Amino acid sequence: MENRIIIPERRIRIISSASVAGGDEENGPFGGSFDITDVNGRFGMETWEKSESEMQRLALGCAMRKGGIDVDSVDAMFAGDLLNQCVGSNYGLSDYRIPYFGLYGACSTAAEGMMLAAIMCSSAPRRCAAVTSSHYCSAERQFRYPLEYGGQRPPTAQWTVTGSGAFILSSEDEDCGEESEYTPVVKEMLPGFVVDRGINDVNNMGAAMAPAAADTIARYFSSGRDVKEPDMIVTGDLGREGSGILCDILASDGYDISDRHVDCGVLIYNIDEADKHSGGSGCGCSAVVMSAHILKNIRSGVIKDVLFIGTGALMSPLTLNQGSTIPGIGHLLRIVGEKR
Amino acid sequence: MENRIIIPERRIRIISSASVAGGDEENGPFGGSFDITDVNGRFGMETWEKSESEMQRLALGCAMRKGGIDVDSVDAMFAGDLLNQCVGSNYGLSDYRIPYFGLYGACSTAAEGMMLAAIMCSSAPRRCAAVTSSHYCSAERQFRYPLEYGGQRPPTAQWTVTGSGAFILSSEDEDCGEESEYTPVVKEMLPGFVVDRGINDVNNMGAAMAPAAADTIARYFSSGRDVKEPDMIVTGDLGREGSGILCDILASDGYDISDRHVDCGVLIYNIDEADKHSGGSGCGCSAVVMSAHILKNIRSGVIKDVLFIGTGALMSPLTLNQGSTIPGIGHLLRIVGEKR
Repeated sequence: MENRIIIPERRIRIISSASVAGGDEENGPFGGSFDITDVNGRFGMETWEKSESEMQRLALGCAMRKGGIDVDSVDAMFAGDLLNQCVGSNYGLSDYRIPYFGLYGACSTAAEGMMLAAIMCSSAPRRCAAVTSSHYCSAERQFRYPLEYGGQRPPTAQWTVTGSGAFILSSEDEDCGEESEYTPVVKEMLPGFVVDRGINDVNNMGAAMAPAAADTIARYFSSGRDVKEPDMIVTGDLGREGSGILCDILASDGYDISDRHVDCGVLIYNIDEADKHSGGSGCGCSAVVMSAHILKNIRSGVIKDVLFIGTGALMSPLTLNQGSTIPGIGHLLRIVGEKR
Repeated sequence: MENRIIIPERRIRIISSASVAGGDEENGPFGGSFDITDVNGRFGMETWEKSESEMQRLALGCAMRKGGIDVDSVDAMFAGDLLNQCVGSNYGLSDYRIPYFGLYGACSTAAEGMMLAAIMCSSAPRRCAAVTSSHYCSAERQFRYPLEYGGQRPPTAQWTVTGSGAFILSSEDEDCGEESEYTPVVKEMLPGFVVDRGINDVNNMGAAMAPAAADTIARYFSSGRDVKEPDMIVTGDLGREGSGILCDILASDGYDISDRHVDCGVLIYNIDEADKHSGGSGCGCSAVVMSAHILKNIRSGVIKDVLFIGTGALMSPLTLNQGSTIPGIGHLLRIVGEKR
C-alpha cells in the first residue's frame, strides 16, 4: 500500500500513437518526426481555440489510421487540455462516436490519460485512447497576456508547446496496431499525489512541478526498484529550471537520476537558438515528444525501458490572484519495449 | 459493441458517501438530509473558490469518517468541478495523500467519477473515491455575471447548486463502509458520447444536455433491457425544461420513461417557492441528491433499482462568444440495492 504501484492485470500495449505540431516544434530537434504539422499553427481554423481542437481531431484520427483501427473498436477515449472547461478536447473529439471521459490534469494529461486507458484495459480485453493538446496562442491569452501585448518573460519561464498527441492502448490478444519490431508495453503505473511546496511564481512552473515529480519518483524507487534499471527517466515539462530542482531533490533523497534523466520540455526545442528560456511546457509537450521520439525509439529497439512521469501544475490564474500557491502532480508510467 | 454497456468484472459497492450543501439547498426538500451545511455558503473561507474547495475537503473527509475508512486504504480519488482548471478539486483535495485523477465532465462529474472509480475497482480488489462540487457564487462570476450585477434570468435558466458530494466505491470482499440494510451496487455502466445538437443559448443548458442524455439512455435500452425494470431513472441536472425535452426525445424513439423519470435539478429545490426557474444545476446538484436522497433510500430499501445519468454541458464562455454551440454528455450507471 505504501508506494501504491499498479501492475496491470493484463498485457497493455500502446498499439498506435500520433503527433500533431506547430511551426516552432517542426523547426526544433524533432522536425520531420511529427505526423502532421502546420507551420502557422492555424490548422485551417479562424480562432486559436478551434485550431487546438482541430489538432486533437487530427491526432486521434491519425493514430487510428496508423494503427488500422476503426472508431467502433475503441471502447473509450480519455482527453483533456489546458483551456477553461477543457474545450480543446470537448469540441475536438465530438466528431468521434467513442465513449468520452474528460480529464483535467494540466500538463500531466498525456500520462493521466494513458494511465486511465491502461486501467480500463486491465479488467477486460479493451482498446482505449488518450488524447491531449496545448497551443501556444490559446494558452498565452488565457493564462498570461494577449499575444499582441508582447509581454516579457524571465529566464525561468517556459513556452507552451503547440501540439497534440494521441495514444491507443490495447489489452486484446490480437496482434494489431502500428507495424514495428518492438511494441511499447505499460508494465507499471504510479499515479501522483497533489503536492504543494509553496511556489507562487507563475513564471516558474518547473519549480512548482518538480517536487510533485520527485514525490512520485521517490515513492517508485522506495519500492526497491533500482534507479539504474530504466534506460531513461523522462519527465513531462519541468524545463531546465525544474529539471535541476528535480535532480537535486532526488539526490538528497539518495536517488541519483542525473545520468538518465531527460525532460520533454528541454528536448523539444533548440532552447538557446530558439529563445525558449527554460524550455517547452503544456499538455502537448510530453504528448508529442512521447509519440514522435520516445515511443518511436522504443518501437525500433533503440530504447528498451522508460520511466515516463507526466507533470502538471494545478493552479488557475484566479487562484494565483487570490494568493494561493501552485500545487503540482506527477503521474508515472513504466513503458518497456517487448518483441511483438 | 453497439451499446457498449460495461458490466463490472467484480462486485462494486458504494460503501460510503457524504454531502455538503449551502443554505438554499438546506432550505429545500432535502433539508436535514445533508451531512454538513453552512447556510451562508462560506464554509469559513474568504473567497467563494476557497469555500468550494473546502466543501470538497469536508465531503471526502466525511465520507471516509462515515464509512470508517482510512486515507491510506483509498487507492485513488477521481475529482473535478466547474471552475477553470478544476481548482475546486485541485486545492480542496490536496490535504489527502491519495493518488489523484483530475476530471472535467462539467455537471456529469459525479457520474464520471463514480464510473472511473468503478472501472479501477474492476480489475483488482480496490477502494476508490469520486468527489465533485459546484458553488453558486463561484460559478456565477465565472460563467455569467458577478453577483453584484444582479443579472436577470429567463425561465429556462438554472441555478447552480452550492454543494459537494463524495462517494467511496469498493470491490473488496471485506464487509466495510456505512451501516445499512442494503448496499448500493454498481451493476452496469454506459459512458456517454459527446453530443452537440446545435443549442447555443447559455440560459438553456437543459436543452443542450437533454439530447446527450437521451442518446445514452436510448443506447442503454436498445440492448433489450426494459424501460420498466429500474424503479427510477434519475438525470443529473436537466431542470424542468431539459426534462421535458428528454422525455419527448425518448418517447419519439419508442421509450416512455415519463412515469419513472426524475431529475436532481427539479428535486433539489421547491422551485416555484424558491424562484429557481428551471431548477438546480452544477456538479454538486446530482452529487448531493444522489448521496443525501437516492443512495440513502437504496440503503434503507425504499428504492431498489436506479438508472442514474449524470449530465454535463461541455462549453466554455469563450467558445460561446466565438459562436460555437453547446456539446453535452450523459454518463449512465445502474445502481441496485443488494442485501449486505
